[in-house]
Amino acid sequence: MPGKRYLETLTPVETAIRELVSRLPGSVETLRLPVWEAVGMVAAEDIVLEHDFPPRPRSAYDGYAVRSEDTPGRLRLVGEAPIGRVDPGLRVGPGEAVYVTTGAYLPEGADAVVPEEEARVENGYIVVEKKYGKWRNVDPPGSIAARGTVLVEAGTVLTVPDAVGLLDVGATEGVFYRRLQVGIIETGNELFRPTTPGETRERVLRGEVVATTGDLIHWFIEEYMPWVEVIDRVMLPDNLDALVWYIKRLMDHADAVLVTGGTGPSEIDLFYRLPDAVGGELVVRGIYVKGGRPTSAVVAGGKLVLGLSGHPLSGLHGLIRLAYPVLAHMGGVRKPPALPVYKARLSSPIGRGRPRPVKVRLRAADGVLYADPLPKVLQLSSANVGLALGDGLALVEDREYAEGEEVVVLAYRTPRGYGAPAIRF
Amino acid sequence: MPGKRYLETLTPVETAIRELVSRLPGSVETLRLPVWEAVGMVAAEDIVLEHDFPPRPRSAYDGYAVRSEDTPGRLRLVGEAPIGRVDPGLRVGPGEAVYVTTGAYLPEGADAVVPEEEARVENGYIVVEKKYGKWRNVDPPGSIAARGTVLVEAGTVLTVPDAVGLLDVGATEGVFYRRLQVGIIETGNELFRPTTPGETRERVLRGEVVATTGDLIHWFIEEYMPWVEVIDRVMLPDNLDALVWYIKRLMDHADAVLVTGGTGPSEIDLFYRLPDAVGGELVVRGIYVKGGRPTSAVVAGGKLVLGLSGHPLSGLHGLIRLAYPVLAHMGGVRKPPALPVYKARLSSPIGRGRPRPVKVRLRAADGVLYADPLPKVLQLSSANVGLALGDGLALVEDREYAEGEEVVVLAYRTPRGYGAPAIRF
Repeated sequence: MPGKRYLETLTPVETAIRELVSRLPGSVETLRLPVWEAVGMVAAEDIVLEHDFPPRPRSAYDGYAVRSEDTPGRLRLVGEAPIGRVDPGLRVGPGEAVYVTTGAYLPEGADAVVPEEEARVENGYIVVEKKYGKWRNVDPPGSIAARGTVLVEAGTVLTVPDAVGLLDVGATEGVFYRRLQVGIIETGNELFRPTTPGETRERVLRGEVVATTGDLIHWFIEEYMPWVEVIDRVMLPDNLDALVWYIKRLMDHADAVLVTGGTGPSEIDLFYRLPDAVGGELVVRGIYVKGGRPTSAVVAGGKLVLGLSGHPLSGLHGLIRLAYPVLAHMGGVRKPPALPVYKARLSSPIGRGRPRPVKVRLRAADGVLYADPLPKVLQLSSANVGLALGDGLALVEDREYAEGEEVVVLAYRTPRGYGAPAIRF
Repeated sequence: MPGKRYLETLTPVETAIRELVSRLPGSVETLRLPVWEAVGMVAAEDIVLEHDFPPRPRSAYDGYAVRSEDTPGRLRLVGEAPIGRVDPGLRVGPGEAVYVTTGAYLPEGADAVVPEEEARVENGYIVVEKKYGKWRNVDPPGSIAARGTVLVEAGTVLTVPDAVGLLDVGATEGVFYRRLQVGIIETGNELFRPTTPGETRERVLRGEVVATTGDLIHWFIEEYMPWVEVIDRVMLPDNLDALVWYIKRLMDHADAVLVTGGTGPSEIDLFYRLPDAVGGELVVRGIYVKGGRPTSAVVAGGKLVLGLSGHPLSGLHGLIRLAYPVLAHMGGVRKPPALPVYKARLSSPIGRGRPRPVKVRLRAADGVLYADPLPKVLQLSSANVGLALGDGLALVEDREYAEGEEVVVLAYRTPRGYGAPAIRF
């Protein structure tokens, strides 16, 4: 059976990743940038704190900065030092107190803070009833983060929370890799882009196919791979010469080219012809996942040309399984931003078959997340409508899954009750 | 103790949500739009399939369209009908076959498909060795989705996978709510925006505070609340008159105004003064979460003014716990897009305390996801640097958590090994 022979030559994904990673550089050029301009980029070096933080003792509460040796006692209020307002002349002498807010540096002389609600105010004086030891309610220098602390490790894709954390302690710049530049080419004579709702509907009903594989791939990259910049996206007919020409043009400035579609013989031709055309090596020819037969990869001059299935979901699946780790390698990524990946219990078993995305509905009940696979007909690679009817994709391996077993689900919707009570809607 | 009294007056979050939702409209104006222009918007009505799909019998394989009654047999190849290429003149007569690709409509006359690898080709003929029943390897009309199927329910925030699914079957338009319009005002005399790395660092070390609460809130809305559009974002000093003036201006066209900061007495003044100034009602004054005392809400003319803590993390926490469900209600959302929320096992216990975000590192080992809380000093609301040192926020309730217990973590980074083997890096 030809089917059998095809399958035997498919490369396991982990092998394909290894082969590609060993041939592709694991970094690109670097830039020194302010951290607030580097969100989504990859730290090329550790970001290290160059000073103690706080640099001076800081109040941990709204209250009164005092000399610990004066407590308990009746202290004269001599001023206020709210956060951010710096008065170098202000100091706390014997028997004195200064009003401070959370995060404010303690005025010279003070070494403890009496929280607002633990002091009584009496015309210009505060009455403190108990002893407050040195550094009580105070963050001493370096107590939040000491000089030399690695705040962000090399390989981290900088997130907004990271940038907020860095700015808070005055770690304001870092060295980052420039973004990877990637082009997307969609091929297929049958493809068209939507125009008006009416015309688009008519063409679909006549048997034409809306070009959506590029949409899915572009979406995933934009949402979840911010270290990658899509610099070009184009739709081409099934014309080998045009395709080779366009790929070569893109390779002048892109780090990688993703080609979707052409699942027929022409695609195979492309990847057999491409190595000669671009002076490269055919490294992958078919991976062992469903819809992975057309997946091909050529490496030339440290650059990647990756062919993915033209079926929207198979193309996306190839991106997630193969392109994601390879582009992470090329971009120097070791700590990527969060993916909406849930672990869910299957409500019905899944049989063997090449690793594949199974369209599922998600359902949270009694604190347990369930994945309900959609009916078989909606699992066909020609039944993309299942994407709208489901909430996520269970990324299953080639083995049997029993009812109740846990699967990895890439979710695009959060079911009601998941994350509750913290997250409600 | 004054502290006690404060606590007793704080409103539980679920009560605050209920009070606000009962006073705020659950929808906005609607628009009829092409689905490819509505990603991120909320379906105001069910999107229903208006025709059977496929509308005509469609091949489920690359192979040969035949008349089932002619099998087994030797059939003359009379043409080809690849997907998307429509030739109305082509038909399969007795003893004939037409080459088709997956997803192509069957030519008139055919009612079964012989997969390519199950037929032998002999100069212009194919030899079929067994019987193929009616509709064998064919998707009959309506088999993928029947006319009348609800493809996307009202209340769904349209995602890219949804749009792909809808386009695939020719469901090309829908009725959507316009995006909610929201303004963000950051207040605080101590705040400044970063300029150069050097100057920014100096100012932080002098005790000034970079305005980042707005960054965190803006980030969360942009990433995870696409039905909301931030139409204005401004930083104002602690000046009540200016603040009231700006809020009133925004309320002319915004559905909601989020005010961060002013944790001191001025903020309290704001929300006691605002109801009169805008002709509204003070509905919430302090919620029972850590850093929730300054959380206030005024409802006026079906619009919301929500005050959140000026501490970046407390502000974000208020957004997630209170603003997220309330803005979901106002936007008509019942099925939001995915949040990167993981369930993780605590590697150390967490004590009682108001519901709060606990900064955690995430670690995947042997298929189990662990949350390691950062040290106590980094949990201070004045220690935002913990955001850079952690990977996510455990959103805990007011109870004790034992080691090994599961917590809900809003992650901004995915730890290595989580999602493997499907997702590798």
